[in-house]
Amino acid sequence: MIDLSLLADGGMAWLDGSGPESHLVLSTRVRLARNLASHRFGTRTTEEEREAILAEVAAAAHSTGSLARAMEFRLDRLDPLDRMLLHERHLVSKELASPDAPRVRSAAALLVQDRTGAMVNEEDHLRLQGLHSGFDLKAVYQNVSRLDTELGQRLAFAFHPEFGYLTSCPTNVGTGLRASVLIHLPGLVLTKEINKVLHGLAQVGLTFRGLYGEGSEVVGNFFQLSNQTTLGQSEDDLLDHLGKMVERVIAHEEQARQVLRREAPGILEDKVWRAYGLLRYARSLSFEETMNLLSGVRLGAGLGLIPNLGFYTLNKLLVYTQPAHLASAAGGEVPESELPTRRARYVRQVLESEAERRG
Amino acid sequence: MIDLSLLADGGMAWLDGSGPESHLVLSTRVRLARNLASHRFGTRTTEEEREAILAEVAAAAHSTGSLARAMEFRLDRLDPLDRMLLHERHLVSKELASPDAPRVRSAAALLVQDRTGAMVNEEDHLRLQGLHSGFDLKAVYQNVSRLDTELGQRLAFAFHPEFGYLTSCPTNVGTGLRASVLIHLPGLVLTKEINKVLHGLAQVGLTFRGLYGEGSEVVGNFFQLSNQTTLGQSEDDLLDHLGKMVERVIAHEEQARQVLRREAPGILEDKVWRAYGLLRYARSLSFEETMNLLSGVRLGAGLGLIPNLGFYTLNKLLVYTQPAHLASAAGGEVPESELPTRRARYVRQVLESEAERRG
Repeated sequence: MIDLSLLADGGMAWLDGSGPESHLVLSTRVRLARNLASHRFGTRTTEEEREAILAEVAAAAHSTGSLARAMEFRLDRLDPLDRMLLHERHLVSKELASPDAPRVRSAAALLVQDRTGAMVNEEDHLRLQGLHSGFDLKAVYQNVSRLDTELGQRLAFAFHPEFGYLTSCPTNVGTGLRASVLIHLPGLVLTKEINKVLHGLAQVGLTFRGLYGEGSEVVGNFFQLSNQTTLGQSEDDLLDHLGKMVERVIAHEEQARQVLRREAPGILEDKVWRAYGLLRYARSLSFEETMNLLSGVRLGAGLGLIPNLGFYTLNKLLVYTQPAHLASAAGGEVPESELPTRRARYVRQVLESEAERRG
Repeated sequence: MIDLSLLADGGMAWLDGSGPESHLVLSTRVRLARNLASHRFGTRTTEEEREAILAEVAAAAHSTGSLARAMEFRLDRLDPLDRMLLHERHLVSKELASPDAPRVRSAAALLVQDRTGAMVNEEDHLRLQGLHSGFDLKAVYQNVSRLDTELGQRLAFAFHPEFGYLTSCPTNVGTGLRASVLIHLPGLVLTKEINKVLHGLAQVGLTFRGLYGEGSEVVGNFFQLSNQTTLGQSEDDLLDHLGKMVERVIAHEEQARQVLRREAPGILEDKVWRAYGLLRYARSLSFEETMNLLSGVRLGAGLGLIPNLGFYTLNKLLVYTQPAHLASAAGGEVPESELPTRRARYVRQVLESEAERRG
């Protein structure tokens, strides 16, 4: 099994709850899709070509500042469990984590250092990415952009003067940029305003996904809001637009929470404490129920109803209660049927020690 | 408001969890219906007659051993809240506790000392009663029977040589005896065996009711099992029959619990701890939910799954979470809408201090 403790923060600085608006926004991600001009794209690459691409990228990366000390994970050589672990830490896409081995291309790799990384031989030759705690679009983009510049000086990216960066899938052509903000919106869900808000976002070119990106369902009222288009606007305009829209969503969520506090304080308090009570004592928890209960507890912590419970602890629970993390803690594969009891035990221990620590 | 602390144990020795089989049986009650030969029965009595009956009974009672130091409550002069309080402590019948004032007859009274008492001017002139902790038919009957003998030496009871004791309602004629055992049967409910068992009891002349006697619904899997007939058998035979049948029910319940432990230990443990978690943290609890959660926790305590939680504490919660007890704790009437939050606060405090006390 891989040892992620070698990463400065286990690859999880993004969930430490230190960033701006951490009570609502878990993390901000920016990724840039890039391809080498000298190689065929995506599914057209041969095994040899992919090995060559990885070799070129790795050599270039290690001479940059951003990835000079990067850890390198050969995803095609990792156990499915380890790939899943990287995915659950939001370090690699679901595509590269699939337990379905044939879908992981040969020479697929992750280079990662601090909060910046690059996936190699995913859908594109390169997916540069940055992931920060809280609502922090500018800072994340700055980091990824520096890496982009550094690599661009060493590698010839496929670039078209009219269209911009060329990518495997036309939806990414142009800036190759996708920025997303992982935000917790229980107030809008409870006040039933969420559909109106999501509909509004769609009309201004934004889209939403669940906790684990494309194709993942929304659970626990966690939404990833991101830009849908990558073409026809500058990176700054795209980020600026997304940022403004997220600010509006944050304002709506805060408003919804105030409405709940004013109109139904008793129901709200009961709801969040029941969630806490179940997490604290249940002996079996499904993934979905855990996310929903964590959502309730997070809302309570955000409103100051549950004191002495840190967002870092709650964020950590989101990740460490996932199957591969539970298996990793158990030292290896765990039968599906054992996951709910292991998950409940883990949650209990964390909340107990948090209660003791914070008294 | 009345001060029940003047009763040796607040009138609640029956729930102290000290009696036989206390993990399953909360209490055993025996009552004897008696009437004075010199007065008309039930609804035919006038106000003056009822005053006379009470005076005669009280004078006789105070010269007995059993009720020499009895406290006397004039139910017709008590606040509805106080009447309810006595009912919730299982000291007077629902009929005498009704908030519906006209149904409480003038001169209705309760005399009570230790675990023995007498209701006066209820359906019959006299309802002698005993209430003990646990499964203890013989001892309860002994106490009530002593009171019956003592009063019978001082008062002329209506008695027919062929039919036995005469009562207002023909269903009580004969021995005038009703014995009931308040038993907790979550195992039989969870294994869906309960209907078969209750059907079997009906076939051998027994009946069941809820926590608060005739007409009360079964909540929290608490059943009052009692004899249906009072005629044609001696008191000893009636008690012996009920006792044997309750022993069988106890055996069935124990068996059901073993089945649950064997077949679904994880589900069982999860169920009881979730109940505990909700009681410990909810901010609003309805009466019915409280009973159901207490049922789960009681099952857990009985199976040793929840350590350090006493049956006395759990039994007390059954009584003190009732409306009149919550109002009494608040110093007077409490609006219906406030009861759920007060109930939850009370339950929380009791479980917290129990956890601290038992560490």
